[in-house]
Amino acid sequence: MKAKIHVTLKQGILDPQGKAIEHALDTLGFKAASNVRVGKYMELDLAEQDKAKAEAEVKAMCEKLLANTIIEEYRFELSN
Amino acid sequence: MKAKIHVTLKQGILDPQGKAIEHALDTLGFKAASNVRVGKYMELDLAEQDKAKAEAEVKAMCEKLLANTIIEEYRFELSN
Repeated sequence: MKAKIHVTLKQGILDPQGKAIEHALDTLGFKAASNVRVGKYMELDLAEQDKAKAEAEVKAMCEKLLANTIIEEYRFELSN
Repeated sequence: MKAKIHVTLKQGILDPQGKAIEHALDTLGFKAASNVRVGKYMELDLAEQDKAKAEAEVKAMCEKLLANTIIEEYRFELSN
Protein backbone atom coordinates (compact mmCIF):
# COMPACT_ATOMS: atom_id res chain seq x y z
CA MET A 1 0.00 0.00 0.00
CA LYS A 2 1.11 3.53 -0.74
CA ALA A 3 0.57 6.39 1.70
CA LYS A 4 0.57 10.07 0.72
CA ILE A 5 0.95 12.29 3.75
CA HIS A 6 0.57 16.05 4.07
CA VAL A 7 1.89 17.81 7.15
CA THR A 8 0.97 21.48 7.42
CA LEU A 9 1.21 24.14 10.08
CA LYS A 10 -2.01 24.69 12.01
CA GLN A 11 -3.98 27.80 11.19
CA GLY A 12 -2.78 30.76 13.21
CA ILE A 13 0.77 29.43 13.55
CA LEU A 14 3.26 31.83 11.99
CA ASP A 15 4.91 30.42 8.86
CA PRO A 16 8.24 32.24 8.35
CA GLN A 17 9.17 30.04 5.38
CA GLY A 18 5.89 30.96 3.71
CA LYS A 19 6.51 34.64 4.43
CA ALA A 20 10.00 34.38 2.91
CA ILE A 21 8.59 32.76 -0.24
CA GLU A 22 5.88 35.42 -0.44
CA HIS A 23 8.51 38.12 -0.25
CA ALA A 24 10.68 36.41 -2.87
CA LEU A 25 7.68 36.04 -5.20
CA ASP A 26 6.92 39.71 -4.71
CA THR A 27 10.52 40.60 -5.59
CA LEU A 28 10.24 38.50 -8.75
CA GLY A 29 7.16 40.44 -9.81
CA PHE A 30 4.41 38.10 -8.65
CA LYS A 31 2.60 40.76 -6.66
CA ALA A 32 -0.70 38.90 -6.61
CA ALA A 33 0.39 35.94 -4.45
CA SER A 34 -0.57 36.04 -0.79
CA ASN A 35 -1.06 33.78 2.22
CA VAL A 36 1.74 31.43 1.21
CA ARG A 37 1.88 28.46 3.56
CA VAL A 38 4.52 25.76 3.31
CA GLY A 39 4.16 22.18 4.44
CA LYS A 40 5.72 18.79 3.95
CA TYR A 41 4.58 16.10 1.58
CA MET A 42 5.69 12.51 2.05
CA GLU A 43 5.11 9.34 0.11
CA LEU A 44 5.93 5.91 1.43
CA ASP A 45 5.25 2.27 0.71
CA LEU A 46 3.76 -0.01 3.35
CA ALA A 47 3.98 -3.78 3.43
CA GLU A 48 0.60 -3.89 5.20
CA GLN A 49 -2.24 -4.79 2.84
CA ASP A 50 -5.18 -4.38 5.21
CA LYS A 51 -6.52 -0.84 4.85
CA ALA A 52 -7.63 -0.38 8.48
CA LYS A 53 -4.30 -1.62 9.83
CA ALA A 54 -2.35 0.50 7.35
CA GLU A 55 -4.37 3.53 8.41
CA ALA A 56 -3.61 2.92 12.09
CA GLU A 57 0.07 2.48 11.25
CA VAL A 58 0.37 5.71 9.28
CA LYS A 59 -1.54 7.57 12.01
CA ALA A 60 0.96 6.30 14.59
CA MET A 61 3.90 7.31 12.33
CA CYS A 62 2.50 10.82 12.02
CA GLU A 63 1.87 11.18 15.76
CA LYS A 64 5.25 9.80 16.76
CA LEU A 65 7.60 11.16 14.13
CA LEU A 66 6.31 12.87 11.02
CA ALA A 67 4.23 15.68 12.51
CA ASN A 68 4.71 17.89 15.53
CA THR A 69 1.06 17.82 16.58
CA ILE A 70 1.43 20.85 18.83
CA ILE A 71 1.85 23.17 15.85
CA GLU A 72 1.18 20.92 12.85
CA GLU A 73 -1.71 18.93 11.51
CA TYR A 74 -1.55 15.99 9.15
CA ARG A 75 -3.75 14.17 6.69
CA PHE A 76 -3.07 11.18 4.53
CA GLU A 77 -4.52 9.03 1.79
CA LEU A 78 -3.87 5.36 1.17
CA SER A 79 -3.94 3.68 -2.19
CA ASN A 80 -3.02 0.30 -3.57
CA MET B 1 -8.01 31.62 -6.60
CA LYS B 2 -6.19 29.13 -4.42
CA ALA B 3 -3.20 27.13 -5.68
CA LYS B 4 -1.99 23.89 -4.12
CA ILE B 5 1.50 23.04 -5.27
CA HIS B 6 3.50 19.84 -4.81
CA VAL B 7 7.24 19.88 -5.43
CA THR B 8 8.92 16.48 -5.34
CA LEU B 9 12.32 15.11 -6.25
CA LYS B 10 12.46 13.47 -9.65
CA GLN B 11 12.58 9.71 -9.73
CA GLY B 12 16.11 8.43 -9.45
CA ILE B 13 17.34 11.45 -7.49
CA LEU B 14 18.65 10.39 -4.09
CA ASP B 15 16.46 11.61 -1.21
CA PRO B 16 18.61 11.74 1.95
CA GLN B 17 15.79 13.27 4.01
CA GLY B 18 13.53 10.39 3.00
CA LYS B 19 16.25 7.89 3.89
CA ALA B 20 16.67 9.53 7.31
CA ILE B 21 12.93 9.32 7.97
CA GLU B 22 12.89 5.69 6.82
CA HIS B 23 15.68 4.91 9.26
CA ALA B 24 13.93 6.77 12.10
CA LEU B 25 10.68 4.92 11.39
CA ASP B 26 12.58 1.65 11.44
CA THR B 27 14.11 2.57 14.81
CA LEU B 28 10.63 3.36 16.14
CA GLY B 29 9.44 -0.12 15.15
CA PHE B 30 7.76 0.66 11.83
CA LYS B 31 9.70 -1.94 9.89
CA ALA B 32 7.20 -2.13 7.05
CA ALA B 33 7.72 1.38 5.67
CA SER B 34 9.94 1.74 2.63
CA ASN B 35 10.67 4.08 -0.27
CA VAL B 36 10.05 7.19 1.80
CA ARG B 37 10.24 10.30 -0.39
CA VAL B 38 9.90 13.80 0.96
CA GLY B 39 8.67 16.82 -0.94
CA LYS B 40 7.28 20.27 -0.36
CA TYR B 41 3.65 21.27 -0.30
CA MET B 42 2.64 24.88 -0.72
CA GLU B 43 -0.66 26.69 -0.67
CA LEU B 44 -1.15 30.25 -1.80
CA ASP B 45 -3.86 32.68 -2.76
CA LEU B 46 -3.87 34.42 -6.10
CA ALA B 47 -5.67 37.65 -6.94
CA GLU B 48 -6.03 36.42 -10.55
CA GLN B 49 -9.54 35.08 -11.26
CA ASP B 50 -8.99 33.83 -14.80
CA LYS B 51 -8.03 30.14 -14.64
CA ALA B 52 -5.75 30.10 -17.68
CA LYS B 53 -3.87 33.19 -16.51
CA ALA B 54 -3.60 31.84 -12.96
CA GLU B 55 -2.22 28.58 -14.34
CA ALA B 56 0.43 30.41 -16.35
CA GLU B 57 1.33 32.48 -13.29
CA VAL B 58 1.75 29.49 -10.96
CA LYS B 59 3.76 27.68 -13.64
CA ALA B 60 6.11 30.66 -13.85
CA MET B 61 6.41 30.80 -10.05
CA CYS B 62 7.36 27.13 -9.96
CA GLU B 63 9.91 27.45 -12.75
CA LYS B 64 11.51 30.60 -11.35
CA LEU B 65 11.46 30.04 -7.60
CA LEU B 66 9.51 27.19 -6.06
CA ALA B 67 11.05 24.19 -7.81
CA ASN B 68 14.58 23.40 -8.89
CA THR B 69 13.59 21.83 -12.19
CA ILE B 70 16.94 20.12 -12.63
CA ILE B 71 16.21 17.71 -9.80
CA GLU B 72 12.60 18.41 -8.88
CA GLU B 73 9.23 18.19 -10.57
CA TYR B 74 6.10 20.09 -9.67
CA ARG B 75 2.38 19.79 -10.07
CA PHE B 76 -0.41 22.04 -8.93
CA GLU B 77 -4.16 22.36 -8.70
CA LEU B 78 -6.21 25.53 -8.76
CA SER B 79 -9.52 26.03 -7.03
CA ASN B 80 -11.82 28.93 -6.31
